[in-house]
Amino acid sequence: MFKPLLSLTGGLLATAAIGIAQAKPLAQEDLSVAEVLRDRALASSNAYSIVESLTVEVGPRRAGTQGDQRAVAWAQEKMKSLGFDNVYTEQIEVPRWTRGHAHAQVISPYPQPLVVSSLGYSVATPEGGLTAEIVEFPDVETLLEASPKQVKGKIAFINKRMEKKRTGEGYGPVVQGRSKGMRAAAEKGAAALLLRSVGTDSDRFAHTGMMSLDNIENPIPALALSAPDANLLEAMLNRGKPVEAKLDMDNQRHSDGPSFNVVGEITGRENPEEVMIIGAHLDSWDEGTGALDDGAGVAIVMETARLIAELPVRPRRTLRVVLYGAEEIGLVGAKQYLDAHRQELDNIVAVSESDFGAGKIWRFDTRLPENKFDIADQMMQLLAPLGIERGNNQSYGGPDSSVFVAEGVPAFGLYQDGTDYFDYHHTPNDTLDKVKPENLRQNVAAWVVMSFLATEMEGNFGRVPVELEK
Amino acid sequence: MFKPLLSLTGGLLATAAIGIAQAKPLAQEDLSVAEVLRDRALASSNAYSIVESLTVEVGPRRAGTQGDQRAVAWAQEKMKSLGFDNVYTEQIEVPRWTRGHAHAQVISPYPQPLVVSSLGYSVATPEGGLTAEIVEFPDVETLLEASPKQVKGKIAFINKRMEKKRTGEGYGPVVQGRSKGMRAAAEKGAAALLLRSVGTDSDRFAHTGMMSLDNIENPIPALALSAPDANLLEAMLNRGKPVEAKLDMDNQRHSDGPSFNVVGEITGRENPEEVMIIGAHLDSWDEGTGALDDGAGVAIVMETARLIAELPVRPRRTLRVVLYGAEEIGLVGAKQYLDAHRQELDNIVAVSESDFGAGKIWRFDTRLPENKFDIADQMMQLLAPLGIERGNNQSYGGPDSSVFVAEGVPAFGLYQDGTDYFDYHHTPNDTLDKVKPENLRQNVAAWVVMSFLATEMEGNFGRVPVELEK
Repeated sequence: MFKPLLSLTGGLLATAAIGIAQAKPLAQEDLSVAEVLRDRALASSNAYSIVESLTVEVGPRRAGTQGDQRAVAWAQEKMKSLGFDNVYTEQIEVPRWTRGHAHAQVISPYPQPLVVSSLGYSVATPEGGLTAEIVEFPDVETLLEASPKQVKGKIAFINKRMEKKRTGEGYGPVVQGRSKGMRAAAEKGAAALLLRSVGTDSDRFAHTGMMSLDNIENPIPALALSAPDANLLEAMLNRGKPVEAKLDMDNQRHSDGPSFNVVGEITGRENPEEVMIIGAHLDSWDEGTGALDDGAGVAIVMETARLIAELPVRPRRTLRVVLYGAEEIGLVGAKQYLDAHRQELDNIVAVSESDFGAGKIWRFDTRLPENKFDIADQMMQLLAPLGIERGNNQSYGGPDSSVFVAEGVPAFGLYQDGTDYFDYHHTPNDTLDKVKPENLRQNVAAWVVMSFLATEMEGNFGRVPVELEK
Repeated sequence: MFKPLLSLTGGLLATAAIGIAQAKPLAQEDLSVAEVLRDRALASSNAYSIVESLTVEVGPRRAGTQGDQRAVAWAQEKMKSLGFDNVYTEQIEVPRWTRGHAHAQVISPYPQPLVVSSLGYSVATPEGGLTAEIVEFPDVETLLEASPKQVKGKIAFINKRMEKKRTGEGYGPVVQGRSKGMRAAAEKGAAALLLRSVGTDSDRFAHTGMMSLDNIENPIPALALSAPDANLLEAMLNRGKPVEAKLDMDNQRHSDGPSFNVVGEITGRENPEEVMIIGAHLDSWDEGTGALDDGAGVAIVMETARLIAELPVRPRRTLRVVLYGAEEIGLVGAKQYLDAHRQELDNIVAVSESDFGAGKIWRFDTRLPENKFDIADQMMQLLAPLGIERGNNQSYGGPDSSVFVAEGVPAFGLYQDGTDYFDYHHTPNDTLDKVKPENLRQNVAAWVVMSFLATEMEGNFGRVPVELEK
């Protein structure tokens, strides 16, 4: 995850209200119910049980694989068992790929193996591997400016470190190397791309992840290198002799195939056609069990809906939980969901997604018309005791949600502490032990406040214009 | 590392003096020189450069491999460049083994891959792998008591957790599963052994390490499972259905071959035949770069000797740095070293080894006759400012050193903080980034105090009797 479709800019000016509904304050009664729900969430370990179930009984579930199919079946069964009114799937088409082995070793002057992982959908090396000299670049921008002569026939090594921050904002500048690096290297005639992992750990795990594959005629093999291995290569190169490496990888690309967005609803009692969408993505990368990315999110939104379904009456409008397919490979499920649901866009009152791991929520961002800020302020009365502060109005709602935000749909962002998120992101080390049950409880408590109030309140949020990325 | 030959018991009673040399206090002049050396050590980053050089230019160096050969060449060259008087190798014979791939996956009821690593010198699975049901045991003792009927044809899974402690004392009880587990399972007709890694981390790395291979007629494949994977298997088994797994591993055992203990000396000016031996082991496991185990130790003892060699005069007796070969596979180099040097045992005044990572030294243990305790007290005057406290008199001097201790040779133990040591021990994650330069400085400062004073002091420590393990 963590791949917003949009680069949102402009703040309040850009997000001036176009909604025409009257701003009505939330009813005191609704706030009281939300408070009860919050405190029930804090007392329940059910979200942890859900992510435990997903990681143990399904595990890795990369889009288009058998694990993905098992996850789709698991999600439907789980939603039914949790008391959702309406559980169904919507088919999507996804590109498919088989990850084979990926081996790398320095051949000279200091022969030793390197720990690597294929970047998503990379082509294989030629049978038997390829051997070439390494040429290092501090970042993808420098590679883009390099002369083809520097790169031709060599293994381009992008060696940019990521900064560790609570907001995760170190990710954006560094992930460019993953999305654009292979193409940049290929266009200059490189034999392959080696990328210092986009991550903040110093463990010997390479971080996989998707590359942009648009308009690339002659893709080259692309691999991530663990941080300790990137350090090792850097230290070898610093000794001044040419460093030669051998890469051997046997992935395979297939024709497109089916996957599914999985949907479960708590049907509204008065305006069932009006929908609040909360989501997470069901797919994961294939080397971990996808506990943080995005099993935790799946558990948080499922448990949020379950708590609301337990109320004696249904909320005013429909709460729809969408578990998007194929997020990791480019928001594939979300884009196809939007295309299939354009006709109901006006009825989607707001969107939000949980897809930043399992850290405590510390900030509440929104994307609301200005005349609805007081509703966010009222929500804050119940969120503040959870240790959550009011953030900005530039939320994009989470990666998959951003496709709706681009259409003017309001959004909420319950921002998790992401300090450690990129230690585990897209590695084999994304496993259940990284999820702290007490954090999940706090997450669900915040989600249920936001989701219940947005589903129950009178009136809606109107629309919010956005500036699309060029 | 961390495999004492002896289980030392008895404390002071068992270690009463048999030495006949008079107890002489250390000369004030010698203490002054030691203080200067200590402060030079604190100001030097040379030990870090040495472990950097070993891990970058050599990397993995399991006994009997090409990496091992490169390490032997590296060590000789490095010792010469550091100004040792006398650098040489002594050949040893080591059992050899090739690590192939090791794959494991749950087949049913929840198919997903598991992260494993072959235990050292394990046999391969039959071609194409083996599939069998998992049977779980809380520890090797329970497996030893199980009826063959429970185990026959199954994969025995030992699932004992290790406690994290500064002293590393959680290791002893748990490592029994690794040393004895395969034999116990084989004798009951198991198809294979799966061992929860002997480690204190929760990262998806399996910890390899040696098994006892004595007197095993029909060895079976034996693999370590990472902690998250052991949790996963436990959670599957807790669901009550039979869990079936497939293991596929293609290791190969070879005939014995040569390796080497590498030795470098600072020759004594008055009694060169009298020797203080400080050591570390040169070999490592093959999945990391052996930075902590035992590159740090190699660097600490080399830099200790270098600082002493820089003095305007040589110390009274010889300081011998021994880099033992093949420690990891059963103290092979140390045992052969002892056999080759029995005739000079009486001239080995004391031994010590650095083989517990790169944490700060916090305790000074000894194994001295009681009438030499005052010398340790004098050493403590210079060690205490480094944050080191006086420990006990039951040191075994380090794993390789324990072969000398078993012969009555006195020993010193500069005990490192091992809190995190078993997070990385015998995993791919044992890499240079885990070594903190400031800790190495403090280590060398302590080592140079102890080594210089033991090499320079008048008189010797006599002998210390030990109780051998039955």
